[in-house]
Amino acid sequence: MELIESVNNLKIKQIAKLHTRKERKKSNQFLVEGFHLVEEAAKSHIDIEMILTVNPDKLTEIMVENSKQQYEITFKIAEKLSQTEAPQGIYAVCNMPDVANTKFDKVLYLDRIQDPGNVGTIIRTADAAGMDAVVIAKGTVDIYNDKVLRASQGSVFHIPVIEMAFEEACSKVNGKVFGTSLHNGVDFKSIEKPESFMLVLGNEGQGVDGAILEQTDQNLYVPIYGDAESLNVSVCAGILMYHLI
Amino acid sequence: MELIESVNNLKIKQIAKLHTRKERKKSNQFLVEGFHLVEEAAKSHIDIEMILTVNPDKLTEIMVENSKQQYEITFKIAEKLSQTEAPQGIYAVCNMPDVANTKFDKVLYLDRIQDPGNVGTIIRTADAAGMDAVVIAKGTVDIYNDKVLRASQGSVFHIPVIEMAFEEACSKVNGKVFGTSLHNGVDFKSIEKPESFMLVLGNEGQGVDGAILEQTDQNLYVPIYGDAESLNVSVCAGILMYHLI
Repeated sequence: MELIESVNNLKIKQIAKLHTRKERKKSNQFLVEGFHLVEEAAKSHIDIEMILTVNPDKLTEIMVENSKQQYEITFKIAEKLSQTEAPQGIYAVCNMPDVANTKFDKVLYLDRIQDPGNVGTIIRTADAAGMDAVVIAKGTVDIYNDKVLRASQGSVFHIPVIEMAFEEACSKVNGKVFGTSLHNGVDFKSIEKPESFMLVLGNEGQGVDGAILEQTDQNLYVPIYGDAESLNVSVCAGILMYHLI
Repeated sequence: MELIESVNNLKIKQIAKLHTRKERKKSNQFLVEGFHLVEEAAKSHIDIEMILTVNPDKLTEIMVENSKQQYEITFKIAEKLSQTEAPQGIYAVCNMPDVANTKFDKVLYLDRIQDPGNVGTIIRTADAAGMDAVVIAKGTVDIYNDKVLRASQGSVFHIPVIEMAFEEACSKVNGKVFGTSLHNGVDFKSIEKPESFMLVLGNEGQGVDGAILEQTDQNLYVPIYGDAESLNVSVCAGILMYHLI
């Protein structure tokens, strides 16, 4: 296995850039850190470009089989690539799923949801519900955030999670686009199960962006019968997805 | 307003004991700490025995109107009663709702759920869904835990949250008792909306206790269509409650 020793190695410099959203979007790649998550990625359908590790002995069979290249790196490089305080020294550079010519039947669109735990839980629920993809708007929390990955319990690797503008996401779905809004919406239970749809969920405090709500086919709400002011957005997502699927 | 100066005052000693579950159960009282939560309690139907504060000027009209007694306390006493590192110096001693002779139509039973955030979110969802009460089993996280109160966003004060054994809780409901289990259960969508029911949710890792599952009328599950191994228990609670109500 080839050893990379210099923190100034061009490959390493490029990989370190994957910590920025801009570079991930440009290169269509993302970086996964830590033994458990790299293994989850290797077990999934994700296309792994390379695995880098300070400890080649600990690479599992499935990690080697499902990655194109493997490199040994120094601990100094591991530190450079790490976003944690105690790096485990193992990384996977993954290619984002190519959805350029793909159409989906059931899509969830997340508009500026901020809490990593919420986003992770929602991706996990979307996976469980058999959704085809989760699309995240600019301004939504970074899905490669450690907390998101943890809360999603590997689901980030099970279904495509893509960053895309609302208009582009709409073009990926044949069916109706449902917004969520307490104003001018209909009770979700009045909706019959559609064959194809996109469901839009919004920011914890502000809800779905007004400009988006004007472009949806219909807006839904989950009725509140008691004294609670609102529902947690992950709970709301679960109720709506399991009704629509 | 009477001033209590001694940390050895009998009233204060008794109130400090409310930090233990045993004493709360014995006295049927619980302690609420912090300005926001005391105000939430005052706005709700909760019966407030007394409010204690280091700063009587800051008591709001609604706090005075909805509590039987008010006392000024010293900062030393406030520290004794506090469970936070930076006490705000305001406390409410509340009487637990008396449900001895009450029957409920719609009850949620929480069997040893451990995560305070989950329990808080579930209580908030139960409130939103218009459930009549949440019953918690021994071994469930303490609902007067700060994190539970925060995640419930005040819902702990909107509906009765009671600690009770499973058999006793069953006697409070006329309708069917539904467990949740991936084994020997039926798809929740096959259940028609019941007039009265109790829904049982279980521990994050282990699910509902086996002995309880044997005593239920029917066990439900939320089907998993994708690759996720399970659903978060708060999400599952939301899906099931909003289907059954």
